[in-house]
Amino acid sequence: MTVPPVSTEHLARARLLAAPGLAAPVVRSLERIAGRPVEPEDTVQGGPYVYVGAALPEALRGDGLLWFHSVNAGTDAVLDAGPWPSGALLTRTVGRMGERIAQYVLAWVLADCQSVPEFAAQHERAEWRRIPSELASGQTALIHGTGRIGSAVAGLLRACGIRTVGVARTPRAIPPPGFDATAGPDEPVAARWVIAALPLTGATTGYFGADRFAAMGGASFINVGRGATVDLEALEAALHAGTVGRAVLDVLADEPAAPGDRCWRLPRTVVTSHSAGITADDDIVTDFTACLRALMAGRVPALAVNPARGY
Amino acid sequence: MTVPPVSTEHLARARLLAAPGLAAPVVRSLERIAGRPVEPEDTVQGGPYVYVGAALPEALRGDGLLWFHSVNAGTDAVLDAGPWPSGALLTRTVGRMGERIAQYVLAWVLADCQSVPEFAAQHERAEWRRIPSELASGQTALIHGTGRIGSAVAGLLRACGIRTVGVARTPRAIPPPGFDATAGPDEPVAARWVIAALPLTGATTGYFGADRFAAMGGASFINVGRGATVDLEALEAALHAGTVGRAVLDVLADEPAAPGDRCWRLPRTVVTSHSAGITADDDIVTDFTACLRALMAGRVPALAVNPARGY
Repeated sequence: MTVPPVSTEHLARARLLAAPGLAAPVVRSLERIAGRPVEPEDTVQGGPYVYVGAALPEALRGDGLLWFHSVNAGTDAVLDAGPWPSGALLTRTVGRMGERIAQYVLAWVLADCQSVPEFAAQHERAEWRRIPSELASGQTALIHGTGRIGSAVAGLLRACGIRTVGVARTPRAIPPPGFDATAGPDEPVAARWVIAALPLTGATTGYFGADRFAAMGGASFINVGRGATVDLEALEAALHAGTVGRAVLDVLADEPAAPGDRCWRLPRTVVTSHSAGITADDDIVTDFTACLRALMAGRVPALAVNPARGY
Repeated sequence: MTVPPVSTEHLARARLLAAPGLAAPVVRSLERIAGRPVEPEDTVQGGPYVYVGAALPEALRGDGLLWFHSVNAGTDAVLDAGPWPSGALLTRTVGRMGERIAQYVLAWVLADCQSVPEFAAQHERAEWRRIPSELASGQTALIHGTGRIGSAVAGLLRACGIRTVGVARTPRAIPPPGFDATAGPDEPVAARWVIAALPLTGATTGYFGADRFAAMGGASFINVGRGATVDLEALEAALHAGTVGRAVLDVLADEPAAPGDRCWRLPRTVVTSHSAGITADDDIVTDFTACLRALMAGRVPALAVNPARGY
């Protein structure tokens, strides 16, 4: 990964700035870990400075920026807001997000097999009616995205006996952790579930379009990546045509969805209001600490984002 | 396990009888495996005979019965229908039931953590609202029943990072497969989920009563064993008091539940119409074959039931 090196000498004397929205215990932890006080973001007068927050204010997007640590996992909004200052490091917070999202995906995979929403509705109607269940084990999940999130999802599904195939742009001799196998982006794979765990970049906008949906063969589609990777109109057509059996969408291109949004009228679909991978305050502190330790040791943090690639 | 030995000489010359309800492919498979024709149950004139079915007809409950293979996992109804003929072997069909029930339990455990029914209902209302999720991993499930079903449930929950404690009447130095630890029936264990996977015997009727529910500390209660192990009135009181957080009941003492049954009015409860552990035709054939092979080799089948103990 090509990310700029950060000088430990600059890091040692950098000022620490934080977004006003950060919780007080997070701010206190950052001060303790970095060994310096957090200054409000409007006091900056020249660099170098380190900034921690959800978004990067325009006034701070300059030469003085040494390192921006995002409290979120997705950094597309930060990168889209303007050119990235050359030489500045961008890191992100993942925390236990992989574990959270993996449990979300498994919950909906099993809800599908065990008719959880149907039984809940049947109970409301006081109706005793057997619904046959389906074994998830032995079936295949095709996972687009083989990074931290995709691997965590694959690892958990695999622990439950589901075969996991990861979609990789470049073929790999050894599948990434959690995966049984990999396939190319357009290689046909018969799968019971197609899981989207892609970051949003120029290359992934509208990635799930008419062609990909048409090739899904009735699979259930679960999106835990980014909403704009999906062409919602194409998904709607695929749901009507049956090439997508069900859809579970945690993310949408336009959030929050208004009551009149088309997403609520998609057949056999549940939208879960971007709840799958919530970042906890502990996650921010843990991941900031890991990044700082790597930098002090002269290493590139594992959570560094390549601004040119977008993830 | 104390079960009567079956003479291989008797077995070799026994007639094979089967219930009229068995599917034709099952009957053909039984004939092939046993190497003799299946005779209708009303043609029996003295023993020894082997019977395969869901219930044991009164006329066959005599000295001629060498072996009854039940197509179900639960044999309480068969044993309750009258005294068991001394010397006769009772075996049962489990098949992939452990795997099926384990996936059912995990589906509802995760549905609880990920608010699956709530999101489905919210979607129906076209409502965008974040619902925080809960990590299942790191929490504890207390499982009553450490036999095949309980072990399968424990193994799957454990693969997802859930700590599994099995309730055993006799303390064990080494926990059974799938379990991290065991506890005595009345030992207090702080658990997020209490799973009931008990057979119905004299000792387990009404096993889950007011005292046990009062000690659950808000856990969710999931019953995949037998309905009559639960005192439904005590469960209702515990749900109202909050000592049981939620209930998922696959089984009831009286099935099917009529529309006016109290079970439909229990708060925070879903009844799933005895769907968790359906036996497939393949399961009957597979398990009958395993039992027959064990008997021909002079061994007690692993699926043998001790009539005195009831499981």
